[in-house]
Amino acid sequence: RIDTARLVQSLMDLGRMGALPGKGVHRLALTDADKAGRDWTLAQMRELGMQVRIDGIGNVVATYAGREDLPAVMTGSHIDTVRTGGLYDGNLGVLAGLEVVRTLSENGVRPRRPIAVAFFTNEEGARFQPDMLGSLVYVGGMPLETALEARDADGARLGDELARIGYAGEHAPAAPRPDSFFELHIEQGPVLHRQGVQIGVVEGVQGICWLRLTFEGKSNHAGTTPMALRRDAGMSAMRTAAFAHELAARLGGRQLATVGSLRLQPDLVNVIAAQASMTVDLRNTDAAMLARARTELLAHAQACAEQHGVAMRVETLADFDPVAFDTALVDGIERHARALGLSTLRLPSGAGHDAQMLARICPSAMIFVPSLDGLSHNVDEYTPAEDIGYGAQILLRAMLERAER
Amino acid sequence: RIDTARLVQSLMDLGRMGALPGKGVHRLALTDADKAGRDWTLAQMRELGMQVRIDGIGNVVATYAGREDLPAVMTGSHIDTVRTGGLYDGNLGVLAGLEVVRTLSENGVRPRRPIAVAFFTNEEGARFQPDMLGSLVYVGGMPLETALEARDADGARLGDELARIGYAGEHAPAAPRPDSFFELHIEQGPVLHRQGVQIGVVEGVQGICWLRLTFEGKSNHAGTTPMALRRDAGMSAMRTAAFAHELAARLGGRQLATVGSLRLQPDLVNVIAAQASMTVDLRNTDAAMLARARTELLAHAQACAEQHGVAMRVETLADFDPVAFDTALVDGIERHARALGLSTLRLPSGAGHDAQMLARICPSAMIFVPSLDGLSHNVDEYTPAEDIGYGAQILLRAMLERAER
Ligand SMILES: NC(=O)NCCC(=O)O
Ligand SMILES: NC(=O)NCCC(=O)O
Repeated sequence: RIDTARLVQSLMDLGRMGALPGKGVHRLALTDADKAGRDWTLAQMRELGMQVRIDGIGNVVATYAGREDLPAVMTGSHIDTVRTGGLYDGNLGVLAGLEVVRTLSENGVRPRRPIAVAFFTNEEGARFQPDMLGSLVYVGGMPLETALEARDADGARLGDELARIGYAGEHAPAAPRPDSFFELHIEQGPVLHRQGVQIGVVEGVQGICWLRLTFEGKSNHAGTTPMALRRDAGMSAMRTAAFAHELAARLGGRQLATVGSLRLQPDLVNVIAAQASMTVDLRNTDAAMLARARTELLAHAQACAEQHGVAMRVETLADFDPVAFDTALVDGIERHARALGLSTLRLPSGAGHDAQMLARICPSAMIFVPSLDGLSHNVDEYTPAEDIGYGAQILLRAMLERAER
Repeated sequence: RIDTARLVQSLMDLGRMGALPGKGVHRLALTDADKAGRDWTLAQMRELGMQVRIDGIGNVVATYAGREDLPAVMTGSHIDTVRTGGLYDGNLGVLAGLEVVRTLSENGVRPRRPIAVAFFTNEEGARFQPDMLGSLVYVGGMPLETALEARDADGARLGDELARIGYAGEHAPAAPRPDSFFELHIEQGPVLHRQGVQIGVVEGVQGICWLRLTFEGKSNHAGTTPMALRRDAGMSAMRTAAFAHELAARLGGRQLATVGSLRLQPDLVNVIAAQASMTVDLRNTDAAMLARARTELLAHAQACAEQHGVAMRVETLADFDPVAFDTALVDGIERHARALGLSTLRLPSGAGHDAQMLARICPSAMIFVPSLDGLSHNVDEYTPAEDIGYGAQILLRAMLERAER
């Protein structure tokens, strides 16, 4: 019943906002490109006759009225991207939600409960930390005032950027509380594609810990300063990064460690770095293992810093425990997929998602469709139209079933 | 006979060009600040009635005529600085040379040979590589055409920048060839200050090898990509950096290794780096050891890259063998220092200097004065006025002696 071609077309259309030359999208949260993407998506919502609310952190929730005035069955995701993002990450979940509403509306279907489609602010965490910031505020996990004070790498304040693009809304987040939340998303990892499975039934989301370590040493001459007399902030950081990698290997396959950002000051070939700032992204499906990885990493970083006579500062940019989704909803997704004759696999999500925040306030679950070669946060991110259609079809069935309950 | 107060004042005056807020100087080669510094220094040269020549790479040579038209006894250094430089590095050698001429001129002394004072382009190597680029071209070690094509980190072409600031001169480099070359410089290292010695008698300069390693991997999602399936360019770079440090420790105290610059693309917390570009600065007084360090480092980097499924590209930004200065000139400097009742120490230079290039075409030598705490390439770089005066006095005596020969 879902019109797959129309859904894919809408992904292409939204992908024009912040399009990179050649392919891919650069639509960091609250940039002009994000505003363009938001405006376009809002216009779609209004065209469908949905009632739109924007809350204080810029989350947008559009509602298609039900037969009764009950808490809504909600779906959604995000439309911000990383700097070198693809067309699908987040966007699919929002546009599939709108395609669900479009399908209901065209067929004159009015379910018992309202259907809501949301997009949440700054899910990626690429511009402001933590990731899933909008949905975190939505569920009351962070005070709005704190979130508005977040700053990007260039010092821009989230609240100012939100006002600048005209998305500082008046509504209180999560009012009213939804009945349930479904999120369709690309897997962003290689498991489904490698195993040739059509639908991922997501059981939960692994824990995420983001740290920023800042080392302060002393700049000095690379040719005249004996190794033993250096206070090399860069070396402390780079040795810590190498350790993060060894740590992941030692703790086994479920422990992930990524140093995606590292900046040196003054960043010159013959000057010992006075300052090094790096991020560490640690993930594990096991909360205890994740805590252990964090502890070991910080101990090693501290030891490196001391050995190099360097001061170290630690900021926790994100710290989310592993989340288990609602078993009834998860089972339902599996059932609908099988009823459509699709192959399924139960798996945890490697990436963080808005659904993991929504799970704090209502029964939540996710549907994954395969990512070609597991690529994501990469301009070559790709999911075939067929898989997109299957995912959206399951979303439609799961939401309708829940909305009639 | 040198007027120490006047020399120190001129260091402060030149330090106003490109001054950083608070203290220190940012006068990268061929920037507007460098132009201001050059203009100021040229005005000093003209005031002293010296004949000024600018060559094709922007080296400036000012000559104070001798009684006979013979090859000149030359001194000089550079006035470019690193991004966070001090007042003394390079500047001292140029301004002490001008103070020598001022002293001769005021006292009506006209030596047999001309006295030349030079400042060479882009000695620091902080903006364009290699370091000592101007003096390298001056001595015929690099074709002018090649040097003009050098590009800075933002892609600006050296030749364009030189023309932009009006310092693309017409003279052929090193015409005429000097009789000899002396360079007064701050030590930039901790040896003299720690040992309480007043004058460093520089026997030579250690070998310098600068490499740029560029790793090309694949950007992907930090949460969904298993460690074993990553092509993490950043991790290859950071593991190589950590190895450089271990290598220096293993090869012993004379081997130095510095990773001063490292840049990741896209440089985001949750995206595996697609590209990492790093510099390695390797130095050793022993040419064979330096070659071995380079070989081991590149082998390790290649192994890291292969292990991570990452491609690696190597550029050699600078590659200078250790240099031994002229023994007669070195002995003379030691003799003049002792005659003034100063304590001396023979030592190699850790930093590269223009004198090491001039040594290719004429007898050359250097005088070091202490650096407080060995600090250099740091805004807190400092040498007391007294030491500056001693250094300049020895320069005067050594040059006069040679100029009468
Ligand atoms: N889905 C997604 O890419 N979220 C960004 C947060 C994360 O790094 O997992
Ligand atoms: N003297 C000096 O700092 N020269 C720059 C080249 C080097 O790094 O040694």
